[in-house]
Amino acid sequence: MIKAYAAFEPGGELKPFEYDPGPLGAHDVEIDVDFCGICHSDLSMLNNEWGMTRYPFVPGHEVAGRISAVGEHVKKLQVGDRVGLGWHSGYCNECQTCMEGDHNLCDGARGTIVGRHGGFADKVRAQSASVVKLPDNVSSEVAGPLFCGGVTVFNPIVQFGIKPTARVGVVGIGGLGHMALQFLNAWGCEVTAFTSSEAKRTEALELGAHRTLDSRDPQALQDSAGYFDLILSTVNVKLDWGLYVNTLRPKGRLHLVGAVLEPVELSVFSLMGGQRSVSSSPVGSPAVIAQMLEFAARHHIEPKVEVFDMADVNKAIDRLENGSPRYRVVLKK
Amino acid sequence: MIKAYAAFEPGGELKPFEYDPGPLGAHDVEIDVDFCGICHSDLSMLNNEWGMTRYPFVPGHEVAGRISAVGEHVKKLQVGDRVGLGWHSGYCNECQTCMEGDHNLCDGARGTIVGRHGGFADKVRAQSASVVKLPDNVSSEVAGPLFCGGVTVFNPIVQFGIKPTARVGVVGIGGLGHMALQFLNAWGCEVTAFTSSEAKRTEALELGAHRTLDSRDPQALQDSAGYFDLILSTVNVKLDWGLYVNTLRPKGRLHLVGAVLEPVELSVFSLMGGQRSVSSSPVGSPAVIAQMLEFAARHHIEPKVEVFDMADVNKAIDRLENGSPRYRVVLKK
Repeated sequence: MIKAYAAFEPGGELKPFEYDPGPLGAHDVEIDVDFCGICHSDLSMLNNEWGMTRYPFVPGHEVAGRISAVGEHVKKLQVGDRVGLGWHSGYCNECQTCMEGDHNLCDGARGTIVGRHGGFADKVRAQSASVVKLPDNVSSEVAGPLFCGGVTVFNPIVQFGIKPTARVGVVGIGGLGHMALQFLNAWGCEVTAFTSSEAKRTEALELGAHRTLDSRDPQALQDSAGYFDLILSTVNVKLDWGLYVNTLRPKGRLHLVGAVLEPVELSVFSLMGGQRSVSSSPVGSPAVIAQMLEFAARHHIEPKVEVFDMADVNKAIDRLENGSPRYRVVLKK
Repeated sequence: MIKAYAAFEPGGELKPFEYDPGPLGAHDVEIDVDFCGICHSDLSMLNNEWGMTRYPFVPGHEVAGRISAVGEHVKKLQVGDRVGLGWHSGYCNECQTCMEGDHNLCDGARGTIVGRHGGFADKVRAQSASVVKLPDNVSSEVAGPLFCGGVTVFNPIVQFGIKPTARVGVVGIGGLGHMALQFLNAWGCEVTAFTSSEAKRTEALELGAHRTLDSRDPQALQDSAGYFDLILSTVNVKLDWGLYVNTLRPKGRLHLVGAVLEPVELSVFSLMGGQRSVSSSPVGSPAVIAQMLEFAARHHIEPKVEVFDMADVNKAIDRLENGSPRYRVVLKK
């Protein structure tokens, strides 16, 4: 039996919950959970904001732990390996998209907490393809958030071939944004943090931003017309996107990784004049996760985390929902 | 004096008009106009739809002709050279964008018919940087439309590195679309024409489409979910863009080259799930125009044109505005 914490209704408190995972699949592995991050999408799922939550619901898709069992066809992982697991816990591995290496875009990708139980537990299972080994010098305490929030902001840098000569703006200096600043700085880019908080201004500069811009000051945005090659928005609320498009250089891109429910509305002329693009993407493939881990290890990039005992999961959720954690909340088993 | 045809008020009839172009600039050339295409943007400017027309207004920015004079600093062109001129008649040639070869995105780019007189005339002048020589086997009669409509659809193929293995959909089989079908077919792509007209269906197949899709049939669009790598929309009216985004493959792009006044409204989730992009672009740089001409010459790509005497300019405009020309209207001097 797997000992987990589950909600039994939308927004419900998490309570101890046990389930029988059945026999281990031939391509699956079992992970002894050491740490599990809490992501905003755990909260969205907990509250059934996306209409696809099944209860009892065990959140958790930023897992760091050790392999405790492997299915008979698993070759790349062994019992005892230190690993991580993110938003996806499996792929079809057969479609053209998977065959091109874009597993995270596979129609048949399985969400770790969508219709199955996640990492707020002593153990969690996943298809081995979705599990990635941790480099020695990436600690388990901070590894979890890299697997969802981290790769979500690292992946666009890889996908769009962002060059170290690029000027990049990061909108939203929180769980995702604070990792984006570190990645982009190490990538060699000129990094601007958009923030309206004086406290975060200082922290953003420490995290790797070369400068900050007050996102509530329309004049500051106006003055940056035609400046950025890429703007990476991590917020999940609607902004005046036209203002941001206006700050893009010719051929610039506004890329949204925050799950904004409201549609994006944009003038075609503002895109046309500068051959600008607007796009979005979800997490990253296992191959990109592996590249990210190696890059993070080499550049000493770590999410800043606040650690709670897993038994205090409801307190931890409250901290994320109502506090302003710096920057990612992680549960310790 | 240059003998032209000008409108004297928004939507006004074109009448003979003479103007003195003054001394020839050191970096400019004068072109004896042989042919000049009529583009939808000539009509938009004629009617002052974009609020930037100055009257008297001489339309015409799809010029094919022969160099009749060159300024003292012009080296690349000589009197007698067969050339073309498109939407832009000059660039700053100094900014980072120009220095990167993206002259068509230069903030200081000068529109051929914006605040100056265009090609519905016996002569027109332009900065030599904006004028491109015609290959021997591209006839002057069909060359004009390549310089605006042609490069507008050719440029995105180059800019986004569209591969010959790509599946591309073209929305709007008119002046721009009928050239897009030819370019994409020669580029090696699988080409689909979106059209709701039975007559155009047949013509689209002749022009290079491998198949057609009824753009008014929501079921046909639904059935193409996840199919296209690129959709190139040439229409200048608002469509249900979400339906088209849905037909894109992972990493697919919806690219709009039609000047749609209404904002584009898109769900972030529909972009996110497949890492999709939406973008737009204006014409192309002189370097891309030169590549296009060479490619068009090699592959015998020509716009289909209906030729009118320049003296019948008002009849020609009426044909474009109220008829359904196949496919581009060209004036002969």
